[in-house]
Amino acid sequence: MYDIIIIGGGPAGYVAAERAGEHGKKVLLIEEDKLGGVCLNTGCIPTKSMLFSAKTYNHALHAEEFGVTIKDASFDYSKVKERTENLQDKLRSGIAALMKMNKVEVIKGTAKITTRHSVAVGNDEYETQNILICTGSRPFIPPIEGLKNNDKVITNVGILAIDKMPESLCIIGGGVIGIEFANLYAMAGKKVTVIEMLPNICGATDKELGKTVQKKLKAMGVDFHLKATVNKIDDGKVSFTDKKDKTTTIEADAILIATGRAVNTENIGLETIGIDFDRKGIKVNEKAQTNIPNVWAAGDVTGRWQLAHFASRQATVAINNICGRNDICREDAVPSVVYTDPEIASVGITEDIAKERGIEVVTTKYPLTNNGRYLAESNGERAICKVIADKTTKQLLGVHMVGPHSSEMIAAAAVMIETELTTKDIEELIFPHPAICEVIHDAMFNLK
Amino acid sequence: MYDIIIIGGGPAGYVAAERAGEHGKKVLLIEEDKLGGVCLNTGCIPTKSMLFSAKTYNHALHAEEFGVTIKDASFDYSKVKERTENLQDKLRSGIAALMKMNKVEVIKGTAKITTRHSVAVGNDEYETQNILICTGSRPFIPPIEGLKNNDKVITNVGILAIDKMPESLCIIGGGVIGIEFANLYAMAGKKVTVIEMLPNICGATDKELGKTVQKKLKAMGVDFHLKATVNKIDDGKVSFTDKKDKTTTIEADAILIATGRAVNTENIGLETIGIDFDRKGIKVNEKAQTNIPNVWAAGDVTGRWQLAHFASRQATVAINNICGRNDICREDAVPSVVYTDPEIASVGITEDIAKERGIEVVTTKYPLTNNGRYLAESNGERAICKVIADKTTKQLLGVHMVGPHSSEMIAAAAVMIETELTTKDIEELIFPHPAICEVIHDAMFNLK
Repeated sequence: MYDIIIIGGGPAGYVAAERAGEHGKKVLLIEEDKLGGVCLNTGCIPTKSMLFSAKTYNHALHAEEFGVTIKDASFDYSKVKERTENLQDKLRSGIAALMKMNKVEVIKGTAKITTRHSVAVGNDEYETQNILICTGSRPFIPPIEGLKNNDKVITNVGILAIDKMPESLCIIGGGVIGIEFANLYAMAGKKVTVIEMLPNICGATDKELGKTVQKKLKAMGVDFHLKATVNKIDDGKVSFTDKKDKTTTIEADAILIATGRAVNTENIGLETIGIDFDRKGIKVNEKAQTNIPNVWAAGDVTGRWQLAHFASRQATVAINNICGRNDICREDAVPSVVYTDPEIASVGITEDIAKERGIEVVTTKYPLTNNGRYLAESNGERAICKVIADKTTKQLLGVHMVGPHSSEMIAAAAVMIETELTTKDIEELIFPHPAICEVIHDAMFNLK
Repeated sequence: MYDIIIIGGGPAGYVAAERAGEHGKKVLLIEEDKLGGVCLNTGCIPTKSMLFSAKTYNHALHAEEFGVTIKDASFDYSKVKERTENLQDKLRSGIAALMKMNKVEVIKGTAKITTRHSVAVGNDEYETQNILICTGSRPFIPPIEGLKNNDKVITNVGILAIDKMPESLCIIGGGVIGIEFANLYAMAGKKVTVIEMLPNICGATDKELGKTVQKKLKAMGVDFHLKATVNKIDDGKVSFTDKKDKTTTIEADAILIATGRAVNTENIGLETIGIDFDRKGIKVNEKAQTNIPNVWAAGDVTGRWQLAHFASRQATVAINNICGRNDICREDAVPSVVYTDPEIASVGITEDIAKERGIEVVTTKYPLTNNGRYLAESNGERAICKVIADKTTKQLLGVHMVGPHSSEMIAAAAVMIETELTTKDIEELIFPHPAICEVIHDAMFNLK
């Protein structure tokens, strides 16, 4: 009899296993593929590794600006890929070691819930007090004619597996995943086209930040077709209708499908024991608990934030509650990052969400071009930090930035929002100088 | 009659002037040289600009590691200097514009306090309700034989003014300033020797962090002589005695004096009106107020933290109190950064200070090599995040890190310390993934 059986070894599952192990619980982790989930195997980690190499290459191409002359630079994709795979191996070994250290049993196989207290893997059945479902998500494949059984069509999984970068790439979907790949390929000098249904890129991200990145990508030669619908695909040819009802066909060496994610709720036995779920995912409360009290779920499969760090936190909340520590998963300060160059990072509500929810806010847009470090370390192109506070209380509600180091600075903003600081409280904090994070501080003085 | 006369236009003075202007006060700012103080003219800003260029060059030299082949890279100091000077001009214009926008009168000249309510500049005398002294500091010149009237001897002012980098540089003083120049010159391929009296570099910085940077600099060819005393200088020859009582003479094209700072308390009339000060600086209370209630002082001249951002905060505190907002200058969460490669950033107490003050603490050292983004974006060399909490309450007291982005991440730690979060509170926060700032979060689980 296990204390907890965890299904899925991604950022929800393996973090839950680690925490439960630390609490001395008897834990079984079942993973059908590799430890680390989408994040480590076909998501965050390989893309960030490749993006860093591409940024290194791109920074070298523009080094003249900083008084550094570089005559001959080239981007060697096979080396980049090899380095990335080595990194992934290392991180997977790290997780395996962590499981061992915390006495977590790990088995490879496909799990199926058979009763509220048992899970089968093949012919073996395991009994448990609690079940934690962390089965994640997969690429959503839209029903487009000519998409299936087409060698030129790939998802995030396929594009990371190829050995040679295609010379031209058509990306269907201008959300975060699509835009990161657009940036990677554009920095490597490839021809990129992005086709997106919405009028803006990067999904729910503040539109102005998305536009800043879009402008930069355009300058690098990326073609954008927004408010556009793909009609059909034929080999490498993609036919789409744009906002002016004009139909165009473009051709590319590869077509990347980046049209969102579908939750993995099939074939795990949710129906067998009557777990409440729909096509958006498994329904959980703030404790990450399903309608069945000893069955929990965390991560993408719960259909909330499709972010590795949210998955880890939600999984930790489940384990804390299982172990008797009352804990809830707050969602007011979940940071999100787009690892483009420049980076976008956000936490808290956007102006659009404030409007939707009827929250009266004050907003300021602080230009990074007022910041000493930013000017010292960039070419001075437009970049901003947008700060949103409650109109009456002046409590900080959102920070949205585009520019270097945003991904790391956003943690400070997350702490401020979570601790419910007001603009006056933040005015009294001391930020390092010269640092780009000073812009968060400086913005406060404009929020009157 | 002015509301406030501010003496000195550095990060204390010009920020005070801006804030006072925002409050509608009638402000006179007196600066004898250029606006921006040491920070903008001969300190933080030019060094960070040059360091960024040198890091760009150095990163190019090691780009192979990331799959980028660069055949021929060179560091063009004259271009780097020109770019830096343009940046400084731009930032000085920015301050001038800020003064104008906030209706601050600025005059160039040397100020002398004549009464508690008047300040003279040459033959002109100006009356005021309040005086704020922000005269800053200058390089401390130690009484070493052969140092004066020696063309080869320079300070931070001189080294930033020269047109050509000397091929070899001997740095007397291994504090933060000395080490940043050591790194700049080493990255540019110059021969660097550092002579320091203390057994460690970077002053009061956590010793282990200093050692990490020292090791990296050593690998780049920098010679360190710690616990060493300089006996005399003769032209380019520096004679010093080391910890084993051995006397050595080395020769260098230039000798940089980086042996700390002396406060600028002379010739401003402190004695005339009886302001309490000693060789460490003007004594102020938590409100930045001197022993004379309408006379205030902020920044380096108060002899506390010799950091631009502390100066700005202390100056803001003075203005807030002058304007009737009760505000005190807390010092528990003052971040400090060493802009070497890798960067060092610290906030709160070190283990040494905890011992000194008799605070019982728990400490953990979290290796950045456990972090996905760090491994993706580095060569995997040793880097750490050291976290210190109160043993009983588990309140966070200090964060000390060495590694990329430290300067920007430290803001998050400063907020956590200032808001008195415990390790349990921080466990419940959500950090972005993959990001190096996650190490602060991960470290919490080890602080039991």
